[in-house]
Amino acid sequence: MSGGPKFPQVEFADARGELRGSYEDMQAVLRVPWVMFAARSLAVFGGFVPAAWRVSRTTFATRHLERCADELRAMAILPGDDPPDPRPRLAGLGFVESRVDEVREALRALNYGNAKYLLLITAWCEGIQGRASGGAGAVAALEDTVPPGPPAGMAALSMVDPRDVSPRVGGLLRRVTDMHLHHGPSSDFRVLANWPDFLQVALDDILAPVVRTAPYEATAQALLTRAREQVGDLPAIAGLAPDAALAVCSDAEVAAITGLLFLFQRFILDVTIDMVRCTQALDGSDVASASPFPVP
Amino acid sequence: MSGGPKFPQVEFADARGELRGSYEDMQAVLRVPWVMFAARSLAVFGGFVPAAWRVSRTTFATRHLERCADELRAMAILPGDDPPDPRPRLAGLGFVESRVDEVREALRALNYGNAKYLLLITAWCEGIQGRASGGAGAVAALEDTVPPGPPAGMAALSMVDPRDVSPRVGGLLRRVTDMHLHHGPSSDFRVLANWPDFLQVALDDILAPVVRTAPYEATAQALLTRAREQVGDLPAIAGLAPDAALAVCSDAEVAAITGLLFLFQRFILDVTIDMVRCTQALDGSDVASASPFPVP
Repeated sequence: MSGGPKFPQVEFADARGELRGSYEDMQAVLRVPWVMFAARSLAVFGGFVPAAWRVSRTTFATRHLERCADELRAMAILPGDDPPDPRPRLAGLGFVESRVDEVREALRALNYGNAKYLLLITAWCEGIQGRASGGAGAVAALEDTVPPGPPAGMAALSMVDPRDVSPRVGGLLRRVTDMHLHHGPSSDFRVLANWPDFLQVALDDILAPVVRTAPYEATAQALLTRAREQVGDLPAIAGLAPDAALAVCSDAEVAAITGLLFLFQRFILDVTIDMVRCTQALDGSDVASASPFPVP
Repeated sequence: MSGGPKFPQVEFADARGELRGSYEDMQAVLRVPWVMFAARSLAVFGGFVPAAWRVSRTTFATRHLERCADELRAMAILPGDDPPDPRPRLAGLGFVESRVDEVREALRALNYGNAKYLLLITAWCEGIQGRASGGAGAVAALEDTVPPGPPAGMAALSMVDPRDVSPRVGGLLRRVTDMHLHHGPSSDFRVLANWPDFLQVALDDILAPVVRTAPYEATAQALLTRAREQVGDLPAIAGLAPDAALAVCSDAEVAAITGLLFLFQRFILDVTIDMVRCTQALDGSDVASASPFPVP
């Protein structure tokens, strides 16, 4: 992460017109309380986000998609022992149990959404690279939808602005960025930065020991492989193809989008693993591997 | 790979002015007969390539850099048995030994350059993400340079235009692209496409059995880790920082460049492994792991 300028993006609060409509619809259909960093960054490039979301939305409203996300979330648990419970160290920092509950609720929303965004970016990534992004699954699955809107009891999320944080929080966000070889802090870590003590303990004890180790890399690879299979088996095409992208973007913008989708796909893989691991540290692997908002 | 439009780039033959000078100097200083696909694509975005190359060129002219590249090339051999010798099957296709020699010479040039381009893109990637890209090594290494210009006996390379190939070659290039989850065919495979029989046998027997397997991924990861360490230890900063990039690019262009550098870093890792493996199939692992043009 650079200590310098913020990575170009259109934040939810700044989105207008068709883009604002896409952001709102994306949150409603996916039933999540944030728009992924990837989409906010891609929004800088022509008309890609509204056009791509229009292609994806029908498939992403299905119970089938919900099942795919549930499977990926369960796969995001790293092999080996549970990470250490952060509460003893947090208690020593005066971090009370009610604040742990706030973190837990934020993690539930993030874990619910990350697996869906992993599928969305994989569909967009395959589509823009000219590969199959759905259409091999039974079309009847399109009829079986999940009602839009946030699940009952889902927490709202607030992200810190990395340009406007204390030196301590800035240092923590730089650390998480560089630890993953990312280009900036993800939405998820901008949320966790609301609780700097938790973020610090999570980095020290839950994430730093595993990030970019061989089992972590193998888990990311397995998630990617499975997400691609699932995308191919979606009931309808879910990713915008290059020719369609060129109808709403210049060719240089399509190149930019291709690069950013590749970068953010790895980014979301990492964050999916990380947030599941934080929940595992708090509540064990059974809770971490289950959907936080199961759809019957 | 899309069957559609060519990925935006400025080919060597089309480069003019300052960019043409950068292309020529890059080839001379690195002592290679092509400009990497990554640089040709990045050339679409503002003044990044000339500015980034200006930062890199002094360090990349050193014997120290040559040693780093030699180490990476040797690390690119996959664990396990040698791949099968392609010559028996090629002979059955009427592919004579003199054509095998042409392929061997092209591979020598590619293997020489890929390891250097892996270092260059890693320096650019670290730099644009605001991390250290050199300056920790002894500055005296800057004095010990390798004379510019191609090594004696290095083959010229010619790349097919993927928009203007036979259906067979188009199919082979699509296959290599999709096998790796790339967005288009690399320079290296556009070179090998001059010998479709070799490319076919290489894909079937040398690459398809290993690409994206666990040992392949582990080798790519080890190469990335080592390349980053080497970049940090370069005798001077070799990657353009975000603030400097913003002097020659818009912020959206910097975002595009960040995404494309990430994408092409993985791309070059893959191609480095693949070309070393092709040489290993022809001439064994000792030849494949040595510099094809050793600098004394």
